[in-house]
Amino acid sequence: MLVVMSAQATEEQVRAVCQKIESLGYRAHSIPGAQRTAIGITGNRGEVEPGALDDMPGVQEVIRVSKPYKLVSRDLKQENTVLKFAGSPVTIGGADLVIMAGPCGIESREQAFATAERVARAGAQFFRGGAYKPRTSPYSFQGMGEDGLKIMAEIRERFGLLIVTEAVDYESLDLVDQYADMIQIGARNMQNFSLLKRAGRAKKPVLLKRGMSATLEEFLMAAEYVMSEGNYNVVLCERGVRTFADHTRNTLDLSVVPAVQRLSHLPIIVDPSHGTGKRNKVTPLSRAAVAVGADGLIIEVHCDPDRALSDGMQSLYPDQFDALMEQVRQIAAVLGRTVPVAAKAESLRTAG
Amino acid sequence: MLVVMSAQATEEQVRAVCQKIESLGYRAHSIPGAQRTAIGITGNRGEVEPGALDDMPGVQEVIRVSKPYKLVSRDLKQENTVLKFAGSPVTIGGADLVIMAGPCGIESREQAFATAERVARAGAQFFRGGAYKPRTSPYSFQGMGEDGLKIMAEIRERFGLLIVTEAVDYESLDLVDQYADMIQIGARNMQNFSLLKRAGRAKKPVLLKRGMSATLEEFLMAAEYVMSEGNYNVVLCERGVRTFADHTRNTLDLSVVPAVQRLSHLPIIVDPSHGTGKRNKVTPLSRAAVAVGADGLIIEVHCDPDRALSDGMQSLYPDQFDALMEQVRQIAAVLGRTVPVAAKAESLRTAG
Amino acid sequence: MLVVMSAQATEEQVRAVCQKIESLGYRAHSIPGAQRTAIGITGNRGEVEPGALDDMPGVQEVIRVSKPYKLVSRDLKQENTVLKFAGSPVTIGGADLVIMAGPCGIESREQAFATAERVARAGAQFFRGGAYKPRTSPYSFQGMGEDGLKIMAEIRERFGLLIVTEAVDYESLDLVDQYADMIQIGARNMQNFSLLKRAGRAKKPVLLKRGMSATLEEFLMAAEYVMSEGNYNVVLCERGVRTFADHTRNTLDLSVVPAVQRLSHLPIIVDPSHGTGKRNKVTPLSRAAVAVGADGLIIEVHCDPDRALSDGMQSLYPDQFDALMEQVRQIAAVLGRTVPVAAKAESLRTAG
Amino acid sequence: MLVVMSAQATEEQVRAVCQKIESLGYRAHSIPGAQRTAIGITGNRGEVEPGALDDMPGVQEVIRVSKPYKLVSRDLKQENTVLKFAGSPVTIGGADLVIMAGPCGIESREQAFATAERVARAGAQFFRGGAYKPRTSPYSFQGMGEDGLKIMAEIRERFGLLIVTEAVDYESLDLVDQYADMIQIGARNMQNFSLLKRAGRAKKPVLLKRGMSATLEEFLMAAEYVMSEGNYNVVLCERGVRTFADHTRNTLDLSVVPAVQRLSHLPIIVDPSHGTGKRNKVTPLSRAAVAVGADGLIIEVHCDPDRALSDGMQSLYPDQFDALMEQVRQIAAVLGRTVPVAAKAESLRTAG
Repeated sequence: MLVVMSAQATEEQVRAVCQKIESLGYRAHSIPGAQRTAIGITGNRGEVEPGALDDMPGVQEVIRVSKPYKLVSRDLKQENTVLKFAGSPVTIGGADLVIMAGPCGIESREQAFATAERVARAGAQFFRGGAYKPRTSPYSFQGMGEDGLKIMAEIRERFGLLIVTEAVDYESLDLVDQYADMIQIGARNMQNFSLLKRAGRAKKPVLLKRGMSATLEEFLMAAEYVMSEGNYNVVLCERGVRTFADHTRNTLDLSVVPAVQRLSHLPIIVDPSHGTGKRNKVTPLSRAAVAVGADGLIIEVHCDPDRALSDGMQSLYPDQFDALMEQVRQIAAVLGRTVPVAAKAESLRTAG
Repeated sequence: MLVVMSAQATEEQVRAVCQKIESLGYRAHSIPGAQRTAIGITGNRGEVEPGALDDMPGVQEVIRVSKPYKLVSRDLKQENTVLKFAGSPVTIGGADLVIMAGPCGIESREQAFATAERVARAGAQFFRGGAYKPRTSPYSFQGMGEDGLKIMAEIRERFGLLIVTEAVDYESLDLVDQYADMIQIGARNMQNFSLLKRAGRAKKPVLLKRGMSATLEEFLMAAEYVMSEGNYNVVLCERGVRTFADHTRNTLDLSVVPAVQRLSHLPIIVDPSHGTGKRNKVTPLSRAAVAVGADGLIIEVHCDPDRALSDGMQSLYPDQFDALMEQVRQIAAVLGRTVPVAAKAESLRTAG
Repeated sequence: MLVVMSAQATEEQVRAVCQKIESLGYRAHSIPGAQRTAIGITGNRGEVEPGALDDMPGVQEVIRVSKPYKLVSRDLKQENTVLKFAGSPVTIGGADLVIMAGPCGIESREQAFATAERVARAGAQFFRGGAYKPRTSPYSFQGMGEDGLKIMAEIRERFGLLIVTEAVDYESLDLVDQYADMIQIGARNMQNFSLLKRAGRAKKPVLLKRGMSATLEEFLMAAEYVMSEGNYNVVLCERGVRTFADHTRNTLDLSVVPAVQRLSHLPIIVDPSHGTGKRNKVTPLSRAAVAVGADGLIIEVHCDPDRALSDGMQSLYPDQFDALMEQVRQIAAVLGRTVPVAAKAESLRTAG
Repeated sequence: MLVVMSAQATEEQVRAVCQKIESLGYRAHSIPGAQRTAIGITGNRGEVEPGALDDMPGVQEVIRVSKPYKLVSRDLKQENTVLKFAGSPVTIGGADLVIMAGPCGIESREQAFATAERVARAGAQFFRGGAYKPRTSPYSFQGMGEDGLKIMAEIRERFGLLIVTEAVDYESLDLVDQYADMIQIGARNMQNFSLLKRAGRAKKPVLLKRGMSATLEEFLMAAEYVMSEGNYNVVLCERGVRTFADHTRNTLDLSVVPAVQRLSHLPIIVDPSHGTGKRNKVTPLSRAAVAVGADGLIIEVHCDPDRALSDGMQSLYPDQFDALMEQVRQIAAVLGRTVPVAAKAESLRTAG
């Protein structure tokens, strides 16, 4: 914490602020400058409540200096976290890129299987699909619930795809933890701290999406919530933030990828489907996400987007996804990364 | 839904779009203009998924027209909703303004009682205080839980104040529903739809805070979630939105007050404490909130803000709250509204 | 400037940063903390370029501390600036509120006179109206130019109203300086530094509107540009900023009023017309602006808004402006401020 | 334009709105829906002023449909615009990517030449450098003016680089038009319409940077201003927009690249230096910009960034720029694009 005094602050005012700081159990370090004095605060009792100082006479501004994250930080762990999945060669955060693909929502066994076959064949390692859908309207399709989870478990068996799907409350989280390979916490729940703590006590890794107006610090602190409960397998996901810009549904903030990588050891992937909300922007932004250095992509693909019950407008046709995968592979190669082809998918590919 | 064709769209392309619309079970209404054709879509099967049309040849843009809210809308109910509280003369949404005040978090019986006495004496009708605190850091004070709720229940008995406090998950919601008079859903949970539905099945009214980046439509749809489960007693609360501006913690969007009042019959109050995050901005913005036509205020007051465990920087000193109430009363009078003095508070005032 | 070292920075890295700082001609003040070291920088050679330090080993963050504004600052001049206008009792920044009103653009002598009569009668002290209109489209009405200025000069003679109007380049600025009483710099030109410097050499006071995405610091620095050239008569104007919110054209940021008043001695007024872009929001936000403590209002009024050539959607009907003035007077009284009635307007009122 | 009536609007109210529309000289097309009526408006007299309709009884919303841009639009010209430069093989908007590089500001002949040699050797086709600097503070370095332009003209002779540099007012624009190969209009002047029109009458092509909070439509309309005066050689440039995010100075909005390409035939390049404001983000975002499909890059490179007079924090060291060019070439190849090496640069390369 740093207290900046106004240019006209008297020596007495500086002294009073220092005394206040010491009375709260911290040490005050006065730094006299050419025009004004700043006062550094140190101590190991956690942070001073700035409200104690902000309104004192002569104080111009109180600036917070230290960062609150611990477990997510590279200060604690310098090497990248690489997630592994039992019985699978797939990793997240290593040299391989991870590709997650599938429909916005699971609508039926037919729709899910038809889509899964295509994304497996194209080389995705994860199947994504919502069984519990957070929809803006209570009258919109809310997902198939546990039946959707069962369909996805079948897909894992059939196509060798790992499963990632969203949990929206305790009940769904417990079921997702049971059926799926990775628990997604959606953007709208990024600061649902009760749910984050529960995810921190789950067995499966967590895919944590950035909230629509989350700062980098808030994003990392949400991951800290999960980790503070003991679950260290967290993957971050940029999915667009809310701005004034209206040519896309959200503004995809690709600069957060290198920013996260500088501060944290956790992997970060990108969701260009929600990040743009428009089908014709998904492929270019997928290329860009890989080029910026993301550890993977999560993409909406639907076997029949025109009749999708949700988010059809941003879902790729399977043929578009094939073409996207081809481009992504080439860009990944420039960065020295690969998009591995899983064994079962390989057989699908040769059979296809 | 309206489909705007590009200026160069052929007649055949227009026809193809119309056929597609009809094939989806809707009616297409072609509106030829001087430069381009627009196609209106009607039907009573809910909304067309725009993705079905957005990428068709000749289509420039698909514009959503109809609004999804029903129960919150003035279309359904023209007169203002006025909330009543059993055994209390307090109302929300009528001619009287409601004033809610208290500390950010309940920290101890002493702190809560000392603050409650002061806010009651100054004329608040509700005591606010967090027993469950959604904090950005897992290492920050998370609230006293049920013990905090019990302290607030005592405060109701002692000072005649109604109690409003935040619920963050099912368990806390059930307890808040039991101990308090009004259930607060915080900004971070505004799109926690599971929690909203549970609140919709609670007995007590709901105070719903606007999410940090919620549009007016999303804000109203969150209320629709609560109402769609049968709880019609919802009060909205503007508490600042996230923008680039850095002179306040959030940007208080007072224009949302008349905007809500135009579209909805629900009451709306303003939280200038979180809306600004700075003590010295609370009083001017409280005056402004009343002047813009809000139905009330919710304000952080702490008997000793310098030692508050959370949000001390934005909490008023009790003397500042006294002065604020005086100004608020006078502005309310200009709008033909009053800030009534509760019976018990009156006796406190004369005793004080 | 403050350099925050990472928790793992070695003593040697701290030393290297200190040496770098000293080599650039500044003094380094090391502040060892419980977890990390911070290094304060002082010196009277202006600010260090942070790029010199940001990438050094062990550096986590470089934080700018000192503020760049001088002439606008209360550090330099503690008492409020009060503008006076030769031969007129009108002031800006004192106890009296200033009310500026008129059409978005001057369209004809008839339209301008009809509107001017109404706003004078209602008690405005300034007539506003665009002769040079910055329009998003080159094909929209761009204003009457010098002919519009001449009409406004006639209005001053006829109705005793002072004139404020926008300048968009050197030529128009010189003409506005000649014909009007106050030179408006619009939001789109807030960082047109060439124009600001020219306005700083003009004879007349400047009304400086906040840019659509200007921070408080940028806003004050724009005023600093004008003042640095010798024109100390600057009035700031909040007119809404750009955010994700779509229920108003811009988001009116009333908290900037007390924020400016804390840092600067310059007056600040509010434009609720552009700040909301919707007629039905202008009156409530005008009340709020006065209640928050603004020094005045600038409002669009048009004698026939349905046929206005620009911004008709946000212009008040004259009867609405009459009602607004009545409410504004009452709110102003609560804050101990008045809306004086000019002599000529008084005679209009009695004649009316 | 589309008028959406409220669900409770009477037939009479619908009729009144239609009559109003016709009275203004347009045609009204009533589209009755299941719940509400919408009314389409057509006509070739330009757009209705929505204020005429917005407040009529029964009207819920007025939605603007038609887009105001003409010359920038693909509706007018379907094939991409490709800029050529007399006596140079360089193009912008064709298969070749254009790379512009150089210091933020021209500080001295030595600094400019040292930097130019390095960027030419690395393969840039354009040298960028500010002679007129729009700085937030009037006390910051404002550029060398015409002397800076002369240095850049020498650089063209010496290194075979084309020159692009910013103009901030009429005088500087005329000089830039004389000395340079391309006139840059900066973000802060994107809606300085007087300057845009002047640039529209210049001989040289215009590089138009997106304003900090410009929507896509406003961005295109700014280009329309230039084109409407007869200068059809316009290149757009994304350079980051202002959002709440604080991990970069601006939020680089790469999705605007495909969005522009869909609507307009004009080329668009990306500025990752201002777009992020941080040196360590420039290379990843440069890769992403090429991957998303941009027609080129403009990048700050400084031979000694630690001692730069402006923006040193975001300027690359020459060695970093070399490495960036290598990566950019490889990504470009994936998209079937090339980064050509100019003849003189080639000789520098072999000499180097």
